[in-house]
Amino acid sequence: MPDLDYIFKPDSVAIIGASPRELTIGHRIMKNLIDAGYKGEIYPVNPSGTDILGIKSHPSILDVEGSVDLAHIVIKNVLVPEALEDCGKKGVKVCIINTAGFKETGDTGAALEKRILEIAKSYNIRLFGPNCQGIINNSPEINAYCNFTFSRPRHGKISVFTQSGGVGEVICNRLSELGAGLNMYASSGNSCDIDCAEILQYWADDPGTSVIICHVESVEDEHAFFSVVEQVAAKKPVLGLFAGKTVPGAKAVKFHTGGVISSGVWKEPAIKGLIPIDDIEGACQAARAFESLSLPKGNRVAVITNTGGTGVIAADELVKGGCDLPETGIQTSEYLKEILFSEAIVSNPIDILATAGPEQFEKTLLALINDKGFDFIMLNFITPFFVDCKEIAKRTAKIIASSPVPVAVCIMTDKVNWAETLKVYKDYGIPVFDTPEATAKAMCAMIEYFV
Amino acid sequence: MPDLDYIFKPDSVAIIGASPRELTIGHRIMKNLIDAGYKGEIYPVNPSGTDILGIKSHPSILDVEGSVDLAHIVIKNVLVPEALEDCGKKGVKVCIINTAGFKETGDTGAALEKRILEIAKSYNIRLFGPNCQGIINNSPEINAYCNFTFSRPRHGKISVFTQSGGVGEVICNRLSELGAGLNMYASSGNSCDIDCAEILQYWADDPGTSVIICHVESVEDEHAFFSVVEQVAAKKPVLGLFAGKTVPGAKAVKFHTGGVISSGVWKEPAIKGLIPIDDIEGACQAARAFESLSLPKGNRVAVITNTGGTGVIAADELVKGGCDLPETGIQTSEYLKEILFSEAIVSNPIDILATAGPEQFEKTLLALINDKGFDFIMLNFITPFFVDCKEIAKRTAKIIASSPVPVAVCIMTDKVNWAETLKVYKDYGIPVFDTPEATAKAMCAMIEYFV
Repeated sequence: MPDLDYIFKPDSVAIIGASPRELTIGHRIMKNLIDAGYKGEIYPVNPSGTDILGIKSHPSILDVEGSVDLAHIVIKNVLVPEALEDCGKKGVKVCIINTAGFKETGDTGAALEKRILEIAKSYNIRLFGPNCQGIINNSPEINAYCNFTFSRPRHGKISVFTQSGGVGEVICNRLSELGAGLNMYASSGNSCDIDCAEILQYWADDPGTSVIICHVESVEDEHAFFSVVEQVAAKKPVLGLFAGKTVPGAKAVKFHTGGVISSGVWKEPAIKGLIPIDDIEGACQAARAFESLSLPKGNRVAVITNTGGTGVIAADELVKGGCDLPETGIQTSEYLKEILFSEAIVSNPIDILATAGPEQFEKTLLALINDKGFDFIMLNFITPFFVDCKEIAKRTAKIIASSPVPVAVCIMTDKVNWAETLKVYKDYGIPVFDTPEATAKAMCAMIEYFV
Repeated sequence: MPDLDYIFKPDSVAIIGASPRELTIGHRIMKNLIDAGYKGEIYPVNPSGTDILGIKSHPSILDVEGSVDLAHIVIKNVLVPEALEDCGKKGVKVCIINTAGFKETGDTGAALEKRILEIAKSYNIRLFGPNCQGIINNSPEINAYCNFTFSRPRHGKISVFTQSGGVGEVICNRLSELGAGLNMYASSGNSCDIDCAEILQYWADDPGTSVIICHVESVEDEHAFFSVVEQVAAKKPVLGLFAGKTVPGAKAVKFHTGGVISSGVWKEPAIKGLIPIDDIEGACQAARAFESLSLPKGNRVAVITNTGGTGVIAADELVKGGCDLPETGIQTSEYLKEILFSEAIVSNPIDILATAGPEQFEKTLLALINDKGFDFIMLNFITPFFVDCKEIAKRTAKIIASSPVPVAVCIMTDKVNWAETLKVYKDYGIPVFDTPEATAKAMCAMIEYFV
């Protein structure tokens, strides 16, 4: 059994420092595990032996009867070494040390971190942290929410690594808002043992993960790190959010994590499958595109729009991102001239006009899929009050769900009044983007995967 | 009285082509005017003389008893000349010709457009359109929703010009979602008479407008256009969304509006006060920053954060956008060391840690305002469950509301569970951004205004 299985798929979790007081991390982790429906055993450890959230706690981990795969340690930093010794005696496989006050606080903390690592090694315990949030395995067979955060997206295919718990929380929260799905999450703080590279390698072979968001501020050895990224990115897309790209940013990283990049600021090498992303929003949008759409086979994009201006904006953004917008084949354009209004524009981006109804949407979409000249289609749909938008959604969603060519859908609408239209796509599991730029950027990230 | 007052502040509006059928534009404009609480007279014109939405219609505009400032024309293109003749006889000041089928459709349409312009000139009627949406004046004394769109943000200080009705709708919808406020809106389609430049000049002198979003695809004379933009931007910020920045984008513009840019694709000249913006989202975010925050006097930014990783991201984005992140004065840093936790980082970005409570937020914010070394402050606040977030919001919002230094607030949270925290800022009229990047970009747009 790989070491990381004990952290992402533990049969049992102990919380050393579990607490009955609501606003403590030792309480929150217990609550998150219970609320998430964790399938394994939960063992609170608290000297008082009191009940916590209906579960009897043990004065020491050594008093736990069953075996313990994973132990959270949430007690004062100076008490961690003794707790680790106990974990060693108990045969714990992995410890998540949430407690802060180690390397990030200076020399004394660094010495303490060195000591706990030695203890862990002597007992063959793998360490996660210290000074970290923890992990989530969102798979319904596991539901391990070993983390004190507040955001838990639905289960899905995106896995997220962040060096900063705060950034991780923002990402998870945004994925939730977007209706995107998380498979696994890890925020490893000081990463004294298990680090980003090891986690990425684990996810590279995890069939439940189809795309990885990787937020990193500093690594000990850039060359070694990118060599791992290269292996992982050969198997699935890695969306890289590298922070500390400016001198003041890199200075802030040094204060934050104690780490530095040898080159001063991040400069990602060109690695096939590694897609550097500018911001959290872009990472979340690209991730949900990868999660839900089949991979395009090339960069030839057709845009269908029912409003010319947003088609222009889409074209600009797609071209800036490396896409090509070729014209349709002659047969297709002749056909479109026949079925569309005479003022429609059959040049790509194809403007079918705001007055286009379900039939025109349906026929245009099918014609472009069947044209064979396109690798990716963007459907840019503003919802006019004078056409049957729900019916347009029904007809297009049905086609998209079984289309051999991926279709990215941008619905520009009032989300309250057109909730039914949006729901049609949601029911088909089709992600809906809000603006032509966001749609185009997510599409470009997918296309970049092949470059 | 300036000509444009008749379109933005009409005492009466006639709708030639008003209709009792719900899904028509002639019905929707009536409905929008009524629902918006338009303060003037509404005169539906329909040959049947039927009641429309409770208002008796007139067979011809010549039958209207009162005077008519503004007439919408929503009838078939070939009937527009006769309707215009009637408007001329009636003494109508401005016509919004929503009807399509003019220059955008080719030579015959262009000839028709030329003819209506001649008729209008002979009667001294100003024309808006054809092939356009119309305008909104959101001022509560006017409430002129002369437009068939579905989005109407609250009243505020942002005015929006768009050459594409679709793009305008997306902008208005996004401003609504963000809780930002619209003052006036104009989407002038073919712009055969009243054009973007004239509208911008009108808004330059409008005290209700503090910032302008300007979306343009093509202009007849770039030099003349940018010379007007320069005059306007000297008075208030103009956020420029220029579409057709790539060759395929510019080609799409030609198909969409018939227009072209002499230089092929847009290249904005450096104009003081003109801030080129990349995307619709960025334009809306920058606009609400300008709407609600006082102008920074320079580019020296302090970041207060309760999570290190988002502080790094903020620093990167601010620096990329031209900001400087100097250190605090020695007095300030000594004071911060005293009041913050020992692990806090008093170097800029100042990381007060996730455990910081209301007092630390309050004291840090006040110290940075009083430091006098900063022109703009970013408050980067993730909402941990273990601190009193609502109280942090109360204390900081109160300070921000009367701060001589503008403060941009980024709240990273679950908007449902922390709704009360968010509401505190809303009640103070303080805009809240979602991510450090979006906050930083809006701040950089404000700072660019001075460059």
